Amino acid sequence: MAQKPSIPKGTRDFSPEEVSRRNYIINTLRHNFELFGFQPIETPSFENSSTLMGKYGDEGDRLIFKILNSGDYLSKVSEENYAAKDSNALTSEISEKALRYDLTVPFARYVVQHQNEIEFPFKRYQIQPVWRADRPQKGRFREFFQCDADAVGSQSLLQEVTFVQLYDAVFTDLGLKGTTVKMNNRKILSGLAETIGASDKLIDFTVALDKLDKIGEEGVITEMLSKGITAEAIERVKPIFKVSGSFAEKLSVLKELLADSETGKQGIEELQYINEKIEALGLKTVTLDLDVTLARGLNYYTGAIFEVAAPKGVQMGSIGGGGRYDDLTSIFGSNQPLSGVGISFGLDRIYLVLEELNLFPEQAIKGTRLLFLNFGENEALYCLKAVQSLREAGITAELYPDSAKMKKQMSHADKRNINFVVLAGTQEMADGVYTLKNMKTGEQQSLNLQALIKAIS
Amino acid sequence: MAQKPSIPKGTRDFSPEEVSRRNYIINTLRHNFELFGFQPIETPSFENSSTLMGKYGDEGDRLIFKILNSGDYLSKVSEENYAAKDSNALTSEISEKALRYDLTVPFARYVVQHQNEIEFPFKRYQIQPVWRADRPQKGRFREFFQCDADAVGSQSLLQEVTFVQLYDAVFTDLGLKGTTVKMNNRKILSGLAETIGASDKLIDFTVALDKLDKIGEEGVITEMLSKGITAEAIERVKPIFKVSGSFAEKLSVLKELLADSETGKQGIEELQYINEKIEALGLKTVTLDLDVTLARGLNYYTGAIFEVAAPKGVQMGSIGGGGRYDDLTSIFGSNQPLSGVGISFGLDRIYLVLEELNLFPEQAIKGTRLLFLNFGENEALYCLKAVQSLREAGITAELYPDSAKMKKQMSHADKRNINFVVLAGTQEMADGVYTLKNMKTGEQQSLNLQALIKAIS
Repeated sequence: MAQKPSIPKGTRDFSPEEVSRRNYIINTLRHNFELFGFQPIETPSFENSSTLMGKYGDEGDRLIFKILNSGDYLSKVSEENYAAKDSNALTSEISEKALRYDLTVPFARYVVQHQNEIEFPFKRYQIQPVWRADRPQKGRFREFFQCDADAVGSQSLLQEVTFVQLYDAVFTDLGLKGTTVKMNNRKILSGLAETIGASDKLIDFTVALDKLDKIGEEGVITEMLSKGITAEAIERVKPIFKVSGSFAEKLSVLKELLADSETGKQGIEELQYINEKIEALGLKTVTLDLDVTLARGLNYYTGAIFEVAAPKGVQMGSIGGGGRYDDLTSIFGSNQPLSGVGISFGLDRIYLVLEELNLFPEQAIKGTRLLFLNFGENEALYCLKAVQSLREAGITAELYPDSAKMKKQMSHADKRNINFVVLAGTQEMADGVYTLKNMKTGEQQSLNLQALIKAIS
Repeated sequence: MAQKPSIPKGTRDFSPEEVSRRNYIINTLRHNFELFGFQPIETPSFENSSTLMGKYGDEGDRLIFKILNSGDYLSKVSEENYAAKDSNALTSEISEKALRYDLTVPFARYVVQHQNEIEFPFKRYQIQPVWRADRPQKGRFREFFQCDADAVGSQSLLQEVTFVQLYDAVFTDLGLKGTTVKMNNRKILSGLAETIGASDKLIDFTVALDKLDKIGEEGVITEMLSKGITAEAIERVKPIFKVSGSFAEKLSVLKELLADSETGKQGIEELQYINEKIEALGLKTVTLDLDVTLARGLNYYTGAIFEVAAPKGVQMGSIGGGGRYDDLTSIFGSNQPLSGVGISFGLDRIYLVLEELNLFPEQAIKGTRLLFLNFGENEALYCLKAVQSLREAGITAELYPDSAKMKKQMSHADKRNINFVVLAGTQEMADGVYTLKNMKTGEQQSLNLQALIKAIS
C-alpha cells in the first residue's frame, strides 16, 4: 500500500470550496422546488436489478453498475451455466442489485409501490446521485447528481406553465441572466412528419432536423434525402428551416404548415396556451422560445418538450430539460397510465456556467470568519469564551488549537482565506478586550466582546 | 412485470415527511459543523477495492458491497482460476470497485491523496451514505448516512474540548435535553490492565468491563475469571465497579487506583484538563460524564473516547461517539502519522429519539401553506398572479391544476395537510380580492393581494 491512493476513473472528490458551491446550487433548487409545492422523496442507491434492467435499452443495460451478491455467490450458479463462461448470462446469476441509473425509473417504482399512500396530483422533487458506466470524458462522470422535479396525475397544461416559472425562479435566484427555455411539442413533430407523408420516418426526420444548428439547412436536407424522405416532401417542410421571430410569430408559420394535421394543430394549441399564460404572468430572467428542431427524448415524451440553453457566449450544452409523458408507471404493472410532466436541472453544467461567469456569491463559501490566535493555556481559555459567544451569535469562529509560533498561526489564517484574526495576550485579558486584526488592510482595533460581535456581524 | 415492485432488503424509500425531518437534522448538523469551522468534503460512493479491502478486518471485508466490472468481465479471468469456482478468489478478478463502508477510510485516502492542497490542522465534516451487507434488522440498514466531523493534524486537547461543545451545540439546537456525553480514555483502560498485571489481557478485561451495565458486577467478575484474570487482580480493581459522583470525584478514585501507572496517570490528566475547560466554559444541554467502563473501538482509539447516550427513558443505544486516534493515514503510505480526533452523529437513531419525544418542530416539514382552488381558466390565471407574488414573498403556494369538483380540491388540501385554501371566482375577480379560508377553523376572510400576503406571513 505504498503507492499514492487514487479514486476510480469518472468519479470525483469534492473539496470544501466545491461542496459549498454545489450546496449553494442545490439549496437554491431545493428552496424553489419547495416554494412551488414540490415535495422531496429519496429512494435507495441500489434497486433490485429487475426494477432497472430493460428500461433504458440495450446500451443502458450495459451502462448500469451491477452489485455482486454477497457470500459464496458462485455456489448457486449451475455447473452448466458456469461452464459456458458467458459474462452476460452469468451476471443475472451472481448479481441481484444494481446502482440507480437515473431518478425517473426509481420514481415510477416509488409511485406504484406507494400508490395507496400518495395523494394525486403528486409533485415530487428528488436530488440524488446516479451512476453510469459510461466512458468518462470532459464533463461526463460515472457518478453525478440529478435534480428532478415531476408533477404526475394531472393533464392540465398549467403544469407546463408552472415548470417554465420554476426555471425562471431558479435562474433568477442564481443570477443567470440570458438563459433561454426552448420549447417544442412532440405533437408538432408528429404533425410535420404526417403532413409530408413521412409518419413512418418520424425518428429519421426529427433526428436530422435536430442537427440544423450544427450542419445547416443543406446538411439536414442531405441527411433527410439519404433516409428516403422525398425531395418533394422536404420542399413542403422548408419554411421551418427559416422560422424566426417571436414565439407567436413562429406559431403562426407552423399553423399554416400544419393546417391539415389534427395532431399538429393540437401541439400548436398547447404551446400557444402555455405561451399566452407565461406572457400574462411575466418572466424575470428566462426567455421562452419556440424551437421546432428540438427533439429531446422523443421515444419518451408525448407532449411539451423543454430544453434550457445557457446564456449566449458560454460554450455549454443544455443545462436542463424535460417534458410531458403519458405513461410513467405501466412498466411496473400499474392499472392506469399516469400522465405527468418533469424537468431536470444539470447540476454539473450549471456549476461550470456560474464559475465561468463568476456568479458564485462570496457567501456561497461559508468559511471561518474569525481565527483566534493561541498564546498559551490561559489566553486560550479567555479566547474560547469569546469564540463560544460568537458562535451563539451565528458567527463562525475558531481558536487555533496549539500555541504555535505566531507566524505559523497567521499563515494558517492566510491559507484558509480567513479575513480576521483576534489576538488576546495578558494585556488584553487584563483590560477585558480583544484585538481584532483585518488581514487584508492590517488595521487593528481593540474591542470588548460585545463590540467585537457587533464589528464582525 | 405485473408483480408489485419492491426495494432490496435493508434499504428504504423516504417519504416527503421523512426527507424533511431527516434534512432538519442534517441541516442542524451542517450549520453547527460550519459554525465550529469544520469544512465539508465529499468523496465518491465507490472506491477502488484496494482502498477499502483489509481495512475493516475479515468480517468487514465480507460486508463490503462489491461492484461487478463492466463489459465482458469473464474474458480476463484465467481458465485455471475460473475452474476452481471459488467465490472469494474470483471476486478480485471480476470486481475492482466497492461501495464505501464508512467515511473514515475514504477520509484517510482523501487526506493522503490531497495532502499538498490541505492546510493543517484540517477540520472536515462529511455527511454521506455508506453501505454494508449486514443482516438487516430493526434499526440496522444496508444503506445509511454517516455524519462525521474530524480534526486532524493537532494533538491539542482543545480539540476534544471543542467536540464536547459541538455535541452540546447540536443537541441544544435539536432541543434534546438530558443527553449525556460519556467520556473515557484508552490510557486509563491500559493503566488499569497494567496495574493489575493483566496488560496482556487488555481486550478481555475491557470487553468484560464494558458489560457492567448489562450483567452487573458479579457477571463481570465471572467473565474476567473465565478469561484467566486472577481473583486477586480483580480485587484490586473493584473500586471502579462502584465509582460514582461527579466527573472530578470519579477522577479522584481513579487517581488513587492508577498511582503507579504512568499511562494511567496521563489518561487521567487528559480527562481532567478537558473537564476543567468544559466546566469553565459551561454547557447548555449536555451533561459530561466519566464512564470508566466505556471501551468503544479500542483497537482504533488511542486517547479520549466519547459516547453519547440519549435522554434517560428513551430506549436507544448510543446516538453518537468518537475519540482520539494517533495515526489516520499510514495505511495509505503517508510519511508521518497524522493524529486526530473525530466524532459522529447517528442520524437514524437521533431521528427515532426526536420522534419518540415529539421534538420535531412543525416547520421541519415544509409543506405547502396555501392551495388556490381552480374554478376555470380565467380564475386560474387570476390566482396564478397571486401565487407568483406569494412565492416571491417566500410563501409556498400552489394552484390546483385542474378545475375539478370543489369537494375533490378541498379534500386534496385536507389530505396534504394544507391549512389554508384560497377561493377566487368571478365575484372576487370583480372586487380584486381573494377569499382566504382556514381549513381548521372554517373561518373565511376577503382580502386583497397585499393583505393576503400579510395575513399568511
